[in-house]
Amino acid sequence: MNKQILLAARPVGFPKESDFRLMETPVPPPNDGEFRVKILWLSLDPYMRGRMSDAPSYAPPVQLGEVMTGGAAGVVEESKHPNYQTGDFVTGNFGWQQFAVSDGRGTMKVDPSLAPLSAYLGVLGMTGVTAYFGLLDIGQLKDGESVVVSGAAGAVGSIAGQIAKIKGCPVVGIAGDAAKIHYVVNVLGFDAAFNYKTEPDYSQRIGELCPQGVDVYFDNVGGAITDAVFAHINKHARIVVCGQISQYNLDKPEVGPRLLGQLIKKQARAEGFLVYQFASRYKEAITHIAQWLKDGKIKYCEQAAEGIESAPGAFIGMLNGANTGKQLVRIA
Amino acid sequence: MNKQILLAARPVGFPKESDFRLMETPVPPPNDGEFRVKILWLSLDPYMRGRMSDAPSYAPPVQLGEVMTGGAAGVVEESKHPNYQTGDFVTGNFGWQQFAVSDGRGTMKVDPSLAPLSAYLGVLGMTGVTAYFGLLDIGQLKDGESVVVSGAAGAVGSIAGQIAKIKGCPVVGIAGDAAKIHYVVNVLGFDAAFNYKTEPDYSQRIGELCPQGVDVYFDNVGGAITDAVFAHINKHARIVVCGQISQYNLDKPEVGPRLLGQLIKKQARAEGFLVYQFASRYKEAITHIAQWLKDGKIKYCEQAAEGIESAPGAFIGMLNGANTGKQLVRIA
Repeated sequence: MNKQILLAARPVGFPKESDFRLMETPVPPPNDGEFRVKILWLSLDPYMRGRMSDAPSYAPPVQLGEVMTGGAAGVVEESKHPNYQTGDFVTGNFGWQQFAVSDGRGTMKVDPSLAPLSAYLGVLGMTGVTAYFGLLDIGQLKDGESVVVSGAAGAVGSIAGQIAKIKGCPVVGIAGDAAKIHYVVNVLGFDAAFNYKTEPDYSQRIGELCPQGVDVYFDNVGGAITDAVFAHINKHARIVVCGQISQYNLDKPEVGPRLLGQLIKKQARAEGFLVYQFASRYKEAITHIAQWLKDGKIKYCEQAAEGIESAPGAFIGMLNGANTGKQLVRIA
Repeated sequence: MNKQILLAARPVGFPKESDFRLMETPVPPPNDGEFRVKILWLSLDPYMRGRMSDAPSYAPPVQLGEVMTGGAAGVVEESKHPNYQTGDFVTGNFGWQQFAVSDGRGTMKVDPSLAPLSAYLGVLGMTGVTAYFGLLDIGQLKDGESVVVSGAAGAVGSIAGQIAKIKGCPVVGIAGDAAKIHYVVNVLGFDAAFNYKTEPDYSQRIGELCPQGVDVYFDNVGGAITDAVFAHINKHARIVVCGQISQYNLDKPEVGPRLLGQLIKKQARAEGFLVYQFASRYKEAITHIAQWLKDGKIKYCEQAAEGIESAPGAFIGMLNGANTGKQLVRIA
């Protein structure tokens, strides 16, 4: 049987386990032009919170009773598709389930002899590509500029900060517990970091850690942390709006200080992006990241929950900041 | 004697007449390398509100007891500068006064036989240049894209909207009284406009007037109007943050909905700018605008208060939206 996690209810505020439902269906056979994947790893990512809501967004929501959407990696078990053979390892948007049938659209063959399969969901997948294009294309980072990364110990933030270090930039991270701070500074090599959960005055602390101001702010969280960073941006700063996780689980939208006036004073830019807009250039990013990995210049960390049944709890934990690095579920 | 308007007090909220003081001093003689200008026209602009405050900004504040800063146009009366002759017409940052001495830095000779002298403070000066670079460089406007302009009847907004029309774009204006709405639609040729002071639901109205969404938003006002426009931006929209006049006279900063999440959903950009960053390209803008003026494709409107003593009242009026088009003071 194929165990699947369905969306059972649209969450109000933070998702609860009861917003999900486990279902078992027969393992589906592939039709002509399709193949069946046995899923080995599922990726959990903050954007999925948006798909649980039916507020207008860039992508249609998951419907109630539908399998939760999500990137996954697995192995082809049976194929009626000319380009996929049994035993091929693939990534794609296979959803929160044990088996998926695909016609190959949006899937990619990967080589687990070059890197662990799970890495293709993270540092060598959407995560790494998001960090790469966010920092270098949207952020237009120049060598030596001052960088701040929020959500610094998260999957994307941890890679973004390391790419900035490769570019010779001073990098300050913001994260939510002492172990994460230790990790980004002592393992990943950020120049400094602080724990927003114990810091009484974010703005003062950012001023201390970034005496030269902030040229590029890679924002994964939004909210009060972002307000504080805005106060320290330099002339011609770029704010890379990658995520706003602090805002995703609010019962009702939060208000905050108006930030556009600061963009005028600093002749600065805030730009939101979705990694899909760089689809034609993924290979460029992955080639660079693979080289940096090989050279030991990028480290990554994965955290895996065990079994499809654990996906809802692991997802809720990630939204609460329980993870360091990439949050995965080992499906098989 | 030289009548001057000094900054007497830093305003709290809206400036009052008592925040200014009239002073008479002897008409200054030019030293070697300098010339004296008899000022004929003074430009009043929203940015001056920022200079009255000592909050950190992109330019140092006017000090208490100093002459108020401001662009002006006049005629050289006496010169000890090799490049300026008696009778030359010039623009420069001469301040709120009847006579100024300059060493030529930041001044420009202009030809009043080509256009009225006052136009060099407006459509052929900083105003026009601001609209031009804001719309075309910061906004990266492409032919046929949908444009919204706030502060549409103001000096910059009225030019920005007309340049967008020249580029074949549908343009919607937002302004604060019925006469202004009539002016931008029936005189300037905007496709539509609405009066935010009588409109109960900005967002609904913008949705009606921009059924195709908003590609470029030229923002002069900020606040609730901008919140409403954000709800209608298209994928890859550009928000040109030129001014935030609704925020300049608040006793304490306002809060509002957080807007960065919408930038992600729409892969959109908000960018602030100051016209000075385009200083090396002013000529390009002025050449184009002069041609459009000649071709009758751009119209402009000026409103002049009479005499240096009227400057504070006219400035306060402008901050309240009393002007249509460029607000000037006729000094002599």
